[in-house]
Amino acid sequence: MTTTTKPTPRDRLLDAAAELIYREGVGTGIDALCKAAGVSKRSMYQLFAGKDEVLAAALTRQEPRLSALLFPPPGTPAAPRDRVLHVFERLEEAATSPDYRGCPFLAAQVELKDPGHAASEVAARGKQAMSEFFRAEAERGGVGQPELLARRLMVVYDGASARAGIGADTLDGLAVSTAALLLDAAGLTENGPASGPDTAEEAGAPAA
Amino acid sequence: MTTTTKPTPRDRLLDAAAELIYREGVGTGIDALCKAAGVSKRSMYQLFAGKDEVLAAALTRQEPRLSALLFPPPGTPAAPRDRVLHVFERLEEAATSPDYRGCPFLAAQVELKDPGHAASEVAARGKQAMSEFFRAEAERGGVGQPELLARRLMVVYDGASARAGIGADTLDGLAVSTAALLLDAAGLTENGPASGPDTAEEAGAPAA
Repeated sequence: MTTTTKPTPRDRLLDAAAELIYREGVGTGIDALCKAAGVSKRSMYQLFAGKDEVLAAALTRQEPRLSALLFPPPGTPAAPRDRVLHVFERLEEAATSPDYRGCPFLAAQVELKDPGHAASEVAARGKQAMSEFFRAEAERGGVGQPELLARRLMVVYDGASARAGIGADTLDGLAVSTAALLLDAAGLTENGPASGPDTAEEAGAPAA
Repeated sequence: MTTTTKPTPRDRLLDAAAELIYREGVGTGIDALCKAAGVSKRSMYQLFAGKDEVLAAALTRQEPRLSALLFPPPGTPAAPRDRVLHVFERLEEAATSPDYRGCPFLAAQVELKDPGHAASEVAARGKQAMSEFFRAEAERGGVGQPELLARRLMVVYDGASARAGIGADTLDGLAVSTAALLLDAAGLTENGPASGPDTAEEAGAPAA
């Protein structure tokens, strides 16, 4: 016998806010948020000081679900290269949905245009967690410049998710194969830990 | 002796709109736009049916300036690889400005969340022009899959510009060197036209 906990008004409000904001943007009004959540404005203002707080709390509540969706469970798969590519495979799966609008964290940051906004800070922490995951796997794989590889992978993640989100690209393997090329160049090849010719020369300086 | 044409109210409105929307987002109100432009609402409504039209016209007016900023002049530099990297060098230069908020076309599309919006269509054409530039240079360089390389380069462009725009990365060579790795992998190396081992095997299928 299972007991299901009835969602609290706070949970209902935040789930509805997350969905509506993802679909329509951070400009969504308080009235629309309350209506979608089936929560009165009075109740909303008893829970939150205002919309900025709702935005930040909605993103915070989304974070564990997004992490579970994107990151591989600890230890499975085992190889750093496969663990990195797992994230890009999950991104490509998510992007096949007609409702996909890109990474909710990046969208919030692009829309708010204010790194000091409480919701931008939540979003930045979410992106930072992914960057740290990439960096840790690169380090474990013996990559010469793990931070640089993590930055490149974040560029591919954010570029691919944004382009899929606006309907400019269907991905279809593009994110995975582009990430794989960057892993190859960093020496994190299919055949094991970093030992390729590019591990030393891989530098952040302009190449032209 | 030069004659400077006094900007028309239309030009003033569109320039102010472009600047304000870039800084504060597509949710900027009509009142703020008119105030910034020094144009009465009455004048605005004589020129445009509404804010959606202003948004689309402001992006249209920005397009030639953005193209001149990013693309190399015809023939200079000559090599396809250098012409592609020119775009990423210009992006990195632009991103050093404290006012940089990423690509205005991508931002408009992310914020509007509606590919059918007149301004989204203008933005999509702007991005398409860049994709076609990359593809044409890849073709000229003898790359096996020019369309695939162009898609990868667009992912790097949009990811790098978005991350710089939200303050998540300072770039410092990241966009140029990442693009260079993808050009290398496609066989468009520093030593001339495509002849590398990856030109044939470069495929869009997932690599994991």
